[in-house]
Amino acid sequence: MGRQLGCVRRLDALFREWPLGQATYRFAIRARHTGTVTSVSPVSRADVEAAAAVIAPHTRRTPIIEIDGETLGLDITLVFKLEYLQVTGAFKARGAANYMATQPISPAGVVAASGGNHGAAVAYAARRFGHQAHIFVPTTSNPSKVERLKDLGAHVHQVGVTYNDAVDAAEAYLEANDATSIAAFDDPVVMAGAATVTRELDIAAAAGGGLDAVLLACGGGGLVGGAAAWLGTSVPIVACETAGTASYAAALAAGKPVTVPISGVAADHLGAKQIGAVPWAALSGVGAASAVVSDEDVLAAQARLWRLLRVVVEPGVAAPFAALMTGAWVPPAGGRIGVVLCGANVTMPLS
Amino acid sequence: MGRQLGCVRRLDALFREWPLGQATYRFAIRARHTGTVTSVSPVSRADVEAAAAVIAPHTRRTPIIEIDGETLGLDITLVFKLEYLQVTGAFKARGAANYMATQPISPAGVVAASGGNHGAAVAYAARRFGHQAHIFVPTTSNPSKVERLKDLGAHVHQVGVTYNDAVDAAEAYLEANDATSIAAFDDPVVMAGAATVTRELDIAAAAGGGLDAVLLACGGGGLVGGAAAWLGTSVPIVACETAGTASYAAALAAGKPVTVPISGVAADHLGAKQIGAVPWAALSGVGAASAVVSDEDVLAAQARLWRLLRVVVEPGVAAPFAALMTGAWVPPAGGRIGVVLCGANVTMPLS
Repeated sequence: MGRQLGCVRRLDALFREWPLGQATYRFAIRARHTGTVTSVSPVSRADVEAAAAVIAPHTRRTPIIEIDGETLGLDITLVFKLEYLQVTGAFKARGAANYMATQPISPAGVVAASGGNHGAAVAYAARRFGHQAHIFVPTTSNPSKVERLKDLGAHVHQVGVTYNDAVDAAEAYLEANDATSIAAFDDPVVMAGAATVTRELDIAAAAGGGLDAVLLACGGGGLVGGAAAWLGTSVPIVACETAGTASYAAALAAGKPVTVPISGVAADHLGAKQIGAVPWAALSGVGAASAVVSDEDVLAAQARLWRLLRVVVEPGVAAPFAALMTGAWVPPAGGRIGVVLCGANVTMPLS
Repeated sequence: MGRQLGCVRRLDALFREWPLGQATYRFAIRARHTGTVTSVSPVSRADVEAAAAVIAPHTRRTPIIEIDGETLGLDITLVFKLEYLQVTGAFKARGAANYMATQPISPAGVVAASGGNHGAAVAYAARRFGHQAHIFVPTTSNPSKVERLKDLGAHVHQVGVTYNDAVDAAEAYLEANDATSIAAFDDPVVMAGAATVTRELDIAAAAGGGLDAVLLACGGGGLVGGAAAWLGTSVPIVACETAGTASYAAALAAGKPVTVPISGVAADHLGAKQIGAVPWAALSGVGAASAVVSDEDVLAAQARLWRLLRVVVEPGVAAPFAALMTGAWVPPAGGRIGVVLCGANVTMPLS
């Protein structure tokens, strides 16, 4: 998958490296020639099934809980997917595990520039699969995050003062050591792993009558793109973002991924400057809806989730719930609505 | 069920009022005559089945999650029952709902002296069933707890400076108004409701191969007594307490419920001065084991649950996990061990 740490690669270069089989490759070639990506996911349901089998020994099958929306003033049933219970506290472990289980890894180990969920996921998966993990973070990083990466067995490189300094150092390390970079979201193997969240939700919700829509937080798009890969157009998908991290809304408006300014309370966990090319292909292929909420909305939703469920999530992770509570996305009356709670890496009094 | 707010009533008075059917009544009479309670639960499995059906529209079916104990240094599979996701944030809603669904309630409403989980549960169930709830708390109560009771529609009576003042005021109110008291745990109807937690765990865990033991926190004993009512001797039960709230350990040592001094970090949620007579009958009937841990142990376990699962629970609720982590109770190698996380009413930065 090359050495780039960036979020977006040009489609033609991406598709040439595609590891997911001939059918997808043929689609990719067609997409290159026509310049449009409309109805075929870059990750197939079979890819997601394969990922689910591969990662099962290394990740947790997280549960759902069904809540009557009546007390919230909503005429729906909420089907929460409690993915914050995942190893390392977020869905990211799925993609990292799928990558390490299926792709060639350099003897020099794997590299990521992230002090957050992606870095922890890469460190975790590397340890499970017996690889070295080199995680690059700025010296200004929260000491508790650095400690956590070390607890996961990673070599933590603290370099520079900004995140960009850490990215540059990681790129230099990759070049010098011929190590393997694990993309945070813009990679079909990583996205197939992320898609297993929605697959589990889909299967678990079937017993109660299925789902009429699924709402997920969108940063670079791996989680919601994975939902599109699994569900196709069978269930409406809503990509939920804050106004300060609205990469999918901007891509919809422009008709292609574009760079957006990043700000606000979700910046450090949903703040991809551009929706990934792989997620974009999946999302635009199924016509996923967009819902944008304010920082105030997600903070209110975060607090309400605590009162409702005694669940603590990151502010941006509450974006799907905020979209429902504010009416930024209006569910069908009486519907069963999936809400993915994908991460809980907040700083807590309980260390 | 009489008007007493206290934890313990004499068995004969209790059994005469018993609403759970002729078989139990016969047992009760026998117990009165022999003075021993050994092998028959005061709540039957049929009672628990009936409670499960009755409370289903008013409570949540909470999920389980299975965790490999390897990363904790334990050669077991942990099957966590996530009961903190219950309405009002604790299992108590089940017992209160079962009582209000099946017992006569005074037009003057229901009364409880509790600013904690029991008070919230009574307020919640009263609203669901269209009764008035009068909840008595001292004026020194945490304003956020008072606000929560009011949000649940309760009439909150703030009286005196200590909890005993609130209890006295509640007793006086009961006498003057002929209202209905809902016991916190020492009542077969309430315990049958609490037992539905273990029933759900038992059913959900069956798919993965059943359980080799179940660990639960023990305060007055309603939750763990309910486990005994459902499981009988089919699965070993471990009642977990802190040294400052060790009512079951003391009863085991004395051969009967005795008063214990209450102190420490679990005092406000596990701090019953005496194990209830109804729970004691069920627990001693099946020979439930006891595990006692220190305040330091439960605080460490509480923090570890956050790191492991991103779950926030009350200190005493972590007692079962602490018993495993410290070896206060040693599980069978390779076993599947149920751990009930029964409440999460902690004060959080998220209000």
